[in-house]
Amino acid sequence: MKGEVKLGILGGGQLGRMLIQAGLDFNLYTLVLDPDENAPCKDVCHEFFVGSFRDFDTVYEFGKNCDILTIEIEHVNADALEKLEQEGVKVYPDAKTVRTIQDKGLQKEFYKKHAIPSADFRILKDAEELKANTDFLPAFQKLRREGYDGRGVTRLQSEADLGKGFAEPSLLEKLVDFEKEISVIVARNASGQVTAFPVVELSFHPEHNLVDSLFAPANVPYKLQRLAIEIATRVIESFDMVGILAVEMFLTKDGQILVNEVAPRPHNSGHHTIKANYTSQYEQHLRAILNLPLGSTDIQSAAVMLNLLGEPGYDGEAKYEGLQEALTVPGVYIHLYGKKYTRAARKMGHITVLGTDLEEAQQRAESIKNVIKVIA
Amino acid sequence: MKGEVKLGILGGGQLGRMLIQAGLDFNLYTLVLDPDENAPCKDVCHEFFVGSFRDFDTVYEFGKNCDILTIEIEHVNADALEKLEQEGVKVYPDAKTVRTIQDKGLQKEFYKKHAIPSADFRILKDAEELKANTDFLPAFQKLRREGYDGRGVTRLQSEADLGKGFAEPSLLEKLVDFEKEISVIVARNASGQVTAFPVVELSFHPEHNLVDSLFAPANVPYKLQRLAIEIATRVIESFDMVGILAVEMFLTKDGQILVNEVAPRPHNSGHHTIKANYTSQYEQHLRAILNLPLGSTDIQSAAVMLNLLGEPGYDGEAKYEGLQEALTVPGVYIHLYGKKYTRAARKMGHITVLGTDLEEAQQRAESIKNVIKVIA
Repeated sequence: MKGEVKLGILGGGQLGRMLIQAGLDFNLYTLVLDPDENAPCKDVCHEFFVGSFRDFDTVYEFGKNCDILTIEIEHVNADALEKLEQEGVKVYPDAKTVRTIQDKGLQKEFYKKHAIPSADFRILKDAEELKANTDFLPAFQKLRREGYDGRGVTRLQSEADLGKGFAEPSLLEKLVDFEKEISVIVARNASGQVTAFPVVELSFHPEHNLVDSLFAPANVPYKLQRLAIEIATRVIESFDMVGILAVEMFLTKDGQILVNEVAPRPHNSGHHTIKANYTSQYEQHLRAILNLPLGSTDIQSAAVMLNLLGEPGYDGEAKYEGLQEALTVPGVYIHLYGKKYTRAARKMGHITVLGTDLEEAQQRAESIKNVIKVIA
Repeated sequence: MKGEVKLGILGGGQLGRMLIQAGLDFNLYTLVLDPDENAPCKDVCHEFFVGSFRDFDTVYEFGKNCDILTIEIEHVNADALEKLEQEGVKVYPDAKTVRTIQDKGLQKEFYKKHAIPSADFRILKDAEELKANTDFLPAFQKLRREGYDGRGVTRLQSEADLGKGFAEPSLLEKLVDFEKEISVIVARNASGQVTAFPVVELSFHPEHNLVDSLFAPANVPYKLQRLAIEIATRVIESFDMVGILAVEMFLTKDGQILVNEVAPRPHNSGHHTIKANYTSQYEQHLRAILNLPLGSTDIQSAAVMLNLLGEPGYDGEAKYEGLQEALTVPGVYIHLYGKKYTRAARKMGHITVLGTDLEEAQQRAESIKNVIKVIA
């Protein structure tokens, strides 16, 4: 590498923070844009800018000082990305990919066009169109834009649920009778090299609809793991994008794999790779956008990853209970995100539990599951 | 943990930088003192102070704002550490240990007193005493203070070499007919829990007398590995210290293990643990000084660690050649230290090469050994 690369990151949350943490090993000069002056990246980047990553001018002004611009959240101003691309900034993922992914309608149409298996859907403009499509229920209604971590999604069982529906542009998606949710993180560098991390299996918190825990390697037959990796590879190649892409999929009861949604950035389902894999998802994203050879995605240790969420009923300066007890269990690693304030279900950190095999990792994870609490 | 812990670090080099990198996961607030305004820690800590860690007032003023004070170099003002201890700052390692270790004469006497096996020695005040002890040659003469990375050490074969000798307070140490040099990193927390990392085997660069590469697990019979770990444990317990201690040892041709020297801080011989072990030496040091349960030191992957030294003949702004080529080899990980300027043999980074077994790691390391060059 010739001199210091100036890497701009849109979004200053935990994903950006862990990306910068990995980036220290590459001598990167990092700039971050986030609206929250206390964002987790604030104290770990070289230059921190308070501002909206949704605003054209703000993103453009921020990005034009960067050699490479990347994201840690997809809800950014794609027009500004496009202008920056035209002016020679390396924007990874590119404007076109971001624009497609940030709109769940375009995302679904993209899958259809590229023969990527995904649940049936209908696109809706408004409440009128919702009413006209009750024959499609039961289904999930999802807002086309801004849905995130379970927000902007509602389940409509029948016509009687229409009152819970959204009036905004949205899509109806057929319920999938799935057995498991899995995720494959793929990466592609500018030279076109693609690698995939081994399949991880997700489990969701029943109330918050947030990933509660996940584990790797997945408990899924080898043939289906191969298929999941093939599909994820097809998705990133169809986008022709550079960087990392998390592909969340359903494994249906009849043995199909359907793409649920994708995120063109480091992802919650890849946190464990920091401790459990040769290369972490963060380093892989950096290698991809620096156009370096991608690293081995091999598993070093089996792992369970638990999200550390703000305990319901607490709002204020975060305190962490039970760290001492949890860390007595071998293989337990805590990653806190530097967030000053907690609130119910806020992602405050994660815990990776390693084991020589999955059973050991799961037993250890079980024993500490409710030990750590984030209160105020 | 209750709120943010203020951790002060004396020294702002790469060891401090990697400690801070690990510390992000614990929400630590970090302060660093270093005389070099471009020290590797500068942009990664919360507060950076330019000043001498050898000066009483500077260290005292710096340390009194910290909850915990630690070091990444042992040549610090021990009197200031002692005063800070008395005033309630948690100083790890403590003043007494630092004072003993920063003086090679006291260090040797300490080993003798605690029945820790080490080469025979004589303490010398000046040139007169050197001349009076030629019966002890051949031997290494080592300055009592400030020796570091091969500086302050000379080999005196016979009386004819006296001209190369030091006139300052020093010690003569019998040459050890060793087969191997090994290192064991041990850690101890305030509750008295002690863990040891598996033995690593070192190889030195013939000219610079710097560690050139090392690998783990060591190619040493199990019984001797057990003995090395027992000795290292005895050393840290004898010091009654908290934190991490690197114990470098000779394995002699007749199967003895002799302590060479120790460092009460993260150490070059533990860099590979970032990628190769469950817990890295940096996280282990943090767990020790935060009085958290120590982590498992188990090996996840066999590893070779290569120091990335400034190429001789180059002096100026660093450029890195061959990264692209080296990273095509699976298992190769680059850690750059953020140093702007290179000079001959300056430690600019390190490379960890992982493998499923030692043979694979060594073959991979061999294939990239001379590929990366740091030039100007």
